Amino acid sequence: MKKYVIGIDFGTLSGRAILVDAHTGKMIEESVLEYSHGVMTKALPDGTELSPMTALQHPMDYLEVLGKTVPDVMSKAGVDKQDIAGVSIDFTSCTMLPLDSNGIPMCFMDKYASEPNAYAKLWKHHSSQPQADRINKLAKERGEKWHAIYNHSVSSEWMLPKILQTLEEAPTLYEETYRFAEAGDWLSWYLTETESYAPSFAGMKSLWTREGGYPSGEFFAALDSRLGDIVGTKLPENIAYVEDIAGYVSERGAQLTGLAVGTPVALPDLDGPAALPAVRVYEEGQMMVIMGTSAVYLINSPHLVPNTEGIYLYVKDCIYNGLYMYEAGQACFGDAYEWFVKNLVPAAYYEEAKERNINIHKLLREKAMKQRIGESGLLALDWFNGNRSVLSDSRLSGMILGLTINTKPEEIYRAMIEATAFGGKMIVDTFEKNGLRVDTICATGGIAFKDEMLMQIFADVTGKRISVAGTTQGAALGSAIRAAVAGGIYPDIFAAIDVMGAHSAKVYEPIPENVKAYGTLYEEYKRLHDYFGRGENDVMKRISKH
Amino acid sequence: MKKYVIGIDFGTLSGRAILVDAHTGKMIEESVLEYSHGVMTKALPDGTELSPMTALQHPMDYLEVLGKTVPDVMSKAGVDKQDIAGVSIDFTSCTMLPLDSNGIPMCFMDKYASEPNAYAKLWKHHSSQPQADRINKLAKERGEKWHAIYNHSVSSEWMLPKILQTLEEAPTLYEETYRFAEAGDWLSWYLTETESYAPSFAGMKSLWTREGGYPSGEFFAALDSRLGDIVGTKLPENIAYVEDIAGYVSERGAQLTGLAVGTPVALPDLDGPAALPAVRVYEEGQMMVIMGTSAVYLINSPHLVPNTEGIYLYVKDCIYNGLYMYEAGQACFGDAYEWFVKNLVPAAYYEEAKERNINIHKLLREKAMKQRIGESGLLALDWFNGNRSVLSDSRLSGMILGLTINTKPEEIYRAMIEATAFGGKMIVDTFEKNGLRVDTICATGGIAFKDEMLMQIFADVTGKRISVAGTTQGAALGSAIRAAVAGGIYPDIFAAIDVMGAHSAKVYEPIPENVKAYGTLYEEYKRLHDYFGRGENDVMKRISKH
Repeated sequence: MKKYVIGIDFGTLSGRAILVDAHTGKMIEESVLEYSHGVMTKALPDGTELSPMTALQHPMDYLEVLGKTVPDVMSKAGVDKQDIAGVSIDFTSCTMLPLDSNGIPMCFMDKYASEPNAYAKLWKHHSSQPQADRINKLAKERGEKWHAIYNHSVSSEWMLPKILQTLEEAPTLYEETYRFAEAGDWLSWYLTETESYAPSFAGMKSLWTREGGYPSGEFFAALDSRLGDIVGTKLPENIAYVEDIAGYVSERGAQLTGLAVGTPVALPDLDGPAALPAVRVYEEGQMMVIMGTSAVYLINSPHLVPNTEGIYLYVKDCIYNGLYMYEAGQACFGDAYEWFVKNLVPAAYYEEAKERNINIHKLLREKAMKQRIGESGLLALDWFNGNRSVLSDSRLSGMILGLTINTKPEEIYRAMIEATAFGGKMIVDTFEKNGLRVDTICATGGIAFKDEMLMQIFADVTGKRISVAGTTQGAALGSAIRAAVAGGIYPDIFAAIDVMGAHSAKVYEPIPENVKAYGTLYEEYKRLHDYFGRGENDVMKRISKH
Repeated sequence: MKKYVIGIDFGTLSGRAILVDAHTGKMIEESVLEYSHGVMTKALPDGTELSPMTALQHPMDYLEVLGKTVPDVMSKAGVDKQDIAGVSIDFTSCTMLPLDSNGIPMCFMDKYASEPNAYAKLWKHHSSQPQADRINKLAKERGEKWHAIYNHSVSSEWMLPKILQTLEEAPTLYEETYRFAEAGDWLSWYLTETESYAPSFAGMKSLWTREGGYPSGEFFAALDSRLGDIVGTKLPENIAYVEDIAGYVSERGAQLTGLAVGTPVALPDLDGPAALPAVRVYEEGQMMVIMGTSAVYLINSPHLVPNTEGIYLYVKDCIYNGLYMYEAGQACFGDAYEWFVKNLVPAAYYEEAKERNINIHKLLREKAMKQRIGESGLLALDWFNGNRSVLSDSRLSGMILGLTINTKPEEIYRAMIEATAFGGKMIVDTFEKNGLRVDTICATGGIAFKDEMLMQIFADVTGKRISVAGTTQGAALGSAIRAAVAGGIYPDIFAAIDVMGAHSAKVYEPIPENVKAYGTLYEEYKRLHDYFGRGENDVMKRISKH
C-alpha cells in the first residue's frame, strides 16, 4: 500500500509542498518557493503600469512552485513517485484567471502580455470595487434571494466583480476567454488535463449553491447583456461533489511535477477551510479561528441557520459533505498591530528590542503583560480596516479612548489586542445567539503560535478554552489529508482526520478572575460597538475617507 | 523724570527680569536665571524622599533670581538705580510657602530643612488632592455659596488644600507658621519689608472675594477645628486694592537687588493675567488665550455673569479695577502634542527631521499641512489631561476615532491640534452663550509664536480673527507696565497700556471655506463631547485610572 501523500499550499507570496506519511499524519519533508513576480501592484513584467488597488500575480509562478517543490520533497525524503498515494492543492481565494480551452492562461499569449486583466487577479485585488458596488445595487433592487447568503454584500474580492471588470476593460479578452477559473481549480486541471471545479471555491466566492446554482441568467443579463449566457460558458456549470476527486495526474502533470501518471489528485480547497481537517475541527460546537493579518472564524453544523444578523456567510456540502460551514471574520487582526509598530512606536523601544535581540512585538508584550486588566484606562474598537462581522461596513474605523498624557505605547498596543479579542467575542456571541454552539476554539495562523499574551487574553475575553493548532502547516496538512482520501487510504475524510489530524500542543484556559474583569470591559465595548456601529451615531461613516 | 521700569517674571523653571523704557514700552535688556533646585519631586536637598505627586521649590532660588537678574539688567543697560521708576513681580500661582513673622521661609530654619511642607509648594504640587476632595465634599454638604464661583471644584493646586496638607502632615510647622503666602506676595514683602497681599492671588486661588471675604470660620472649623481662626492669622485678613502698591524697596530689598531704597514696588500678579496689559486686552469682547503646556482663556467685562455652566472662574476688581475677569482653560494643550511626539512618533520621522535640521513638530506640521480638512477621516477629543472647561472633570480622557491601518502619525498629530481647537471653540461658544462677547482673540504663550498651522486652524475653527501677541514676554512686560503705574509715570494702568502695550505683529484671519469645512467637523465633535462628557455614556469615567 502506498505510504505518502503530498499537500501543496499556495499562499500570497509563496507556495509550499509537504510530503506526509499518510498512515500517521507526520510531515516528512517540506519545500517552499517564493513567487518570482510576487504581487504585481505597480506594473506588469513588460512595464505596463497598473491602476491603483490592482493586485495581480503571474500564473507561471504557480507552475514553478509545482515544478520545483513537488520533486524537491520526494527527492529530499528519498521517496519514489510510485509511493505517492495522492496529491492536493489549496489556494488563496478568490484568486482567478482567464483560460483558453486547453487550460492555458490567456496572459501566456503574446497578444495579452500587456493586458492586466489577462493575469491572475489575487484575492486582494480591489480595483473591481465599482463592479462589486453595481452588483450589490442591482441585487438589492431586484430583491435577489441569493444575496442574503452573502450579507447582501458581494465583495470586490470575489469572482463576479473580477470577471465584470475584465468584460468592461478588455471585452476582446473576455470574448476569447474559454473559462474564468479559480487558480486552485486551474492547477488541478493543469495536473490532470481534466476540467473539474471544487464546490468550496464555487460556493464561497462564486455565488453558487448546490440547490440554487448561480444567480439567474436574467440577473446576469441585467448586469450586462453580454453576461446573460455566462453560466455554462465562461463560468463552469458543473460543480463537483466534495467526495469527488479532480482527476489523475496526466502526462503534462507528470512532466511538470515528477509525479507518476495516474496519481490521484483530490479536489482543491481554499487555504482557510483547508486547515479544518488538519486541526480536527468538524463537529458541532468546534470553532476554528485563523489569526493572521486578518482573522477568519469557521464553524460547521448539520443545521441551517440563515444569516439574519449580517455576521457570516455559509456554504453547504462544500467543505464537508452533509455539513454547513459558517464563516465570519475580522477585516483586521495582525495588520493592526503591524500598523501600530510601524507607525506609532518610538525609537527607544526599537533600540531596547535590538539590544535585547528580541522582536518589537515581544518587547511590547513583555511591557504590556505587567499591567493589570483595565489598569491603562484604555478601550478601543478594532475596526482599523472596517468591520466585516457583525456590522459588515468597511467605513467603520478604529477608535481608542482613555488616552492621557501618561499613556504609553505598550498600553495602546494591549488595548488594540483586547479590542480584537472583544471583536472576536462579539462574533462568538452572535453565532451562539443564532443557535450555533461554540464550545471550544482551535486557533491557527501565525499569531496563534507566537503571541501567548494575545492567546490568554482571547481565552479570558471569550471565556472559552482555546487550543493552539497542533501544526503550523494547517492548510498543507489539510490538503495532504484530502489527498489521502483521494488516494483511497481512507474511506472518507473523517477517517483520515482521525489518524492524520494534528493534536493540539498547547491549551489556554480562561482564568476566572480575568474573565470577570474583562466581562466588565466587554460591556463597555459592546455599548460603543452599538453606538458607533448600529446607527446611533454614524460619525465614522460620515467622516470616513471611503 | 525717571525713565525705566523693571518687570520680574517667575516661571516654573526660571525667573527673568526685563528692563523696559517706561515711555515707549520698549524692552532694553533682559536677564534669565534658572532655579538651582528646579522642581523637587523626588527628594529635598538633604536627601529626604518625597511622596508621589509632590512638586516643591526652594525659595532661596527665587531670592537668587532677584539678586542676580535685577542688577544684571541695570548693569547691561548702563542704567543707574536712580533711574528706575518702579518694579513689579509676577509669579506662578498658587505657589505658596509658610513664613515667619519677618517674612522668612520656614524651610530656612535648620529644624525644618527636612520637612517637605516647609518648602514652597509649586502650583502643580498635587499631593494635596485628598485635602481638596474633602474641601469640596464639605462645601457641597454645607451648600457653601462661594463654592459656585469655582465650579464647585476647589483644585488641589490652590491655597487651602496646600495649607490643610501642612496642618495634617506637619502640625507643629503649621502651629509655628506666622503666614502662608503666595510666593509673589512673599517676594514683594521681602523687597519692601511691608506685608501686603495682592487681590489677584487672593481672588483667584485663595477663595477670597472683596464682597464676601473668605469662607466662614464655621466652614473652616468644620474642615478642621484648628482652622477656625485661620483668617487673620495664618491667612491675611486685609487684601490690598488693585490700585494700591506693595510698598517701597527697603534696605533689605536694596541690598539684595541693587535697587535704590524707596523704589516703588507694584502689587504682584499671577503670571497668566499679568500678560493682559502687555497685549492690550481689557475691553469687553477681547479674549486673551495663553497657549502653553495647557491653555488659559481670559476675558474681562464690566458685567457679572454668574457661572452656571461650569466653564469659568471669575474674580472682580482683582486684575483691573471695575472689571470682572473670567477664566476658562484646557488642562492639556502643548502637553498633548509633546506626549504624542515623545511616545508615538517613529524613528524615521526623527531621522528626517535631523537630516533637514528641523524640529520634530515642524516636520509633522509640514506633512500635516498637505492634507485637506477632513481628509484623514480622523476626529479626536482633546481631554488628554481631563477636561477643565466646559465639563470640569479630570476623569475624562482623550479619544481618537477614524483610525485605519493607513493612518499616518502626522494625521493623528493634526487631529489632536484640531481637537484642541474644537475644545477652544467650545469655550468661546459657551462664553458667548452666557452673554460674554468674544469679538477678537489675542494669542500668547510659546505655541502662539511658533505654530502657524495651529494658529490658522484656531482661526478657521473659531471663525475669529486671532492676533498674535506683540511680545513674547507678556507677563514680564505686564509687570513692567504695573511698575510704571506704581512709579507714577501713568495715572492708571489703562493709560500705561496705551503707551507701553505691545502691538500685534501677526494676524490670522479665518478663511471662509475652511470655516465651513470645520463647521461640519465641529458638529461631530460637539456630539461626541456631549455623549462622553454629559452623562449619556460615562465610559471614560468608569474606566479611568483616577
